[in-house]
Amino acid sequence: MLDVCLLGTGGMMPLPKRYLTSCLMRYQGESILIDCGEGTQIALRKQGWSCKPISTIFLTHFHADHIAGLPGLLLTMGNAERREPVTIVGPKGVGNILRAVRTIAPELPFETNYREIEGPEDHFSVAGMDVTAFKVNHRVPCYSYEVSIRRGGRFDVARAKENNIPVKAWNPLQKGQTVEMDGQIFTPDMVLGPERKGIKVVYSTDTRPTESIRTHAKNADLLILEGMYGEDDRDAKAREYRHMTMTEAARIAAEADPKEMWYTHYSPLLLHPEEYREKMQAIFPRIVMSRDGQTTEIPFEED
Amino acid sequence: MLDVCLLGTGGMMPLPKRYLTSCLMRYQGESILIDCGEGTQIALRKQGWSCKPISTIFLTHFHADHIAGLPGLLLTMGNAERREPVTIVGPKGVGNILRAVRTIAPELPFETNYREIEGPEDHFSVAGMDVTAFKVNHRVPCYSYEVSIRRGGRFDVARAKENNIPVKAWNPLQKGQTVEMDGQIFTPDMVLGPERKGIKVVYSTDTRPTESIRTHAKNADLLILEGMYGEDDRDAKAREYRHMTMTEAARIAAEADPKEMWYTHYSPLLLHPEEYREKMQAIFPRIVMSRDGQTTEIPFEED
Repeated sequence: MLDVCLLGTGGMMPLPKRYLTSCLMRYQGESILIDCGEGTQIALRKQGWSCKPISTIFLTHFHADHIAGLPGLLLTMGNAERREPVTIVGPKGVGNILRAVRTIAPELPFETNYREIEGPEDHFSVAGMDVTAFKVNHRVPCYSYEVSIRRGGRFDVARAKENNIPVKAWNPLQKGQTVEMDGQIFTPDMVLGPERKGIKVVYSTDTRPTESIRTHAKNADLLILEGMYGEDDRDAKAREYRHMTMTEAARIAAEADPKEMWYTHYSPLLLHPEEYREKMQAIFPRIVMSRDGQTTEIPFEED
Repeated sequence: MLDVCLLGTGGMMPLPKRYLTSCLMRYQGESILIDCGEGTQIALRKQGWSCKPISTIFLTHFHADHIAGLPGLLLTMGNAERREPVTIVGPKGVGNILRAVRTIAPELPFETNYREIEGPEDHFSVAGMDVTAFKVNHRVPCYSYEVSIRRGGRFDVARAKENNIPVKAWNPLQKGQTVEMDGQIFTPDMVLGPERKGIKVVYSTDTRPTESIRTHAKNADLLILEGMYGEDDRDAKAREYRHMTMTEAARIAAEADPKEMWYTHYSPLLLHPEEYREKMQAIFPRIVMSRDGQTTEIPFEED
């Protein structure tokens, strides 16, 4: 089960009733955060989720509305007695950003590290989550993220017994590890069935529509896309500032066919996204006009 | 008339219903801000005051809860079409802080400058406000601020006529300027009465009680002091972290005798400052247990 919470849904600037776009995912007791604009720690507290288990913070790009909340969040994580390191992942230059953040918040009771995303697609593994950063198209270097949890095949007790595999080896084999025991080598394929369907969430904002989004979004359990502009006459503006209109995002969803799609990163001028619900659902029916605190628990399909 | 607004009243971290301590003062169409923690721009927007006329931001010290809101605020000031420069004033090292802020918010449509406070007391003049930074006692270099508006004497029409001062010179003389006209020199003292009482506001937080606070607070119209700890048993903690208890702040007020005193910078653990009202008003009756958005308009005493 993967918990997903869209802490905020705003773009550009936080508003009294709308925090900046940021997404928390929690799996097996560990959390990752994507983007951290000003006020993210307040949104998190409002949501009642702990900031302490956040081990990795992924940044899409370095515009302030996606990063200015880092000093305060890290400080509050320290006050919550986190002592384990925290890694910041982002486009080239993330080291400079982290240095700036540490100038503002120099005293933390844990290490902070960074990793630069390399090439058009890069892979990270965090607490059982496979995170793929893939390049999109904004005014500055910008990445979107696919978070996937792979799920091995079902453990076949009959086959394990048939192959005379010692019971002590069952648990590591189930976890996908190869086991050497009593002079013999046992491999997971000896006891596991075919790989089962996992979980996939894709988060993409601050970009024009790209082929990379369509590819990664294919059959996602949850697709989170920006809905910066709802109005029909904002196409030129969306192109100029390299954002997406709601219609463009809905069309991506219609092609990729996720189980559900959430809008986020509304323009501060867009006060009532709900007004566009009907029009967008005509393009793709399973669209949600998210609000701050939009949450879901995504279970594995079969047990 | 000086408008004063305490945008937030929290210390350490912003809470869903309490923003970080920050104070805006507005005089003759220009504003100054003291401290800018995460969320200050949201508090300002909630208050309905514009961020655009803020020309100078004074920082007491460099703990993140007093500075982490700078990148977002400056960005929003740019979006509000400010084009005039903004100056950041703070203790030694404020240049490094501004560089870090500009790493997070590199694209602004106005210049940003900084001025380091020199010595134990330094003076700044902003739009008719005389701002004095004076050293206090925190774990890191920290200053408090006195904001004063001086008020010249009343213009004496009878004396102006008696001294044969040309009517064209009256306006600059009233503003305190010396005028040379028709080969003669006219000075303000020829037409102005004795200096009248001005306005004085003192803002002091994140410090142990100091003689400098007592001196500057003397007869202030408004004294804003930290009330980090209300509980009686927090004296040792206040000394260790170099903060003030409410009782210590109230005693300063009792000595300095301001027209009114406001508490601010409550600990995040102090959920109901009102519980201490009665006890503190027994020490100094004109104490206000401020909440976010505490506002006053301070008029000149005589017209």
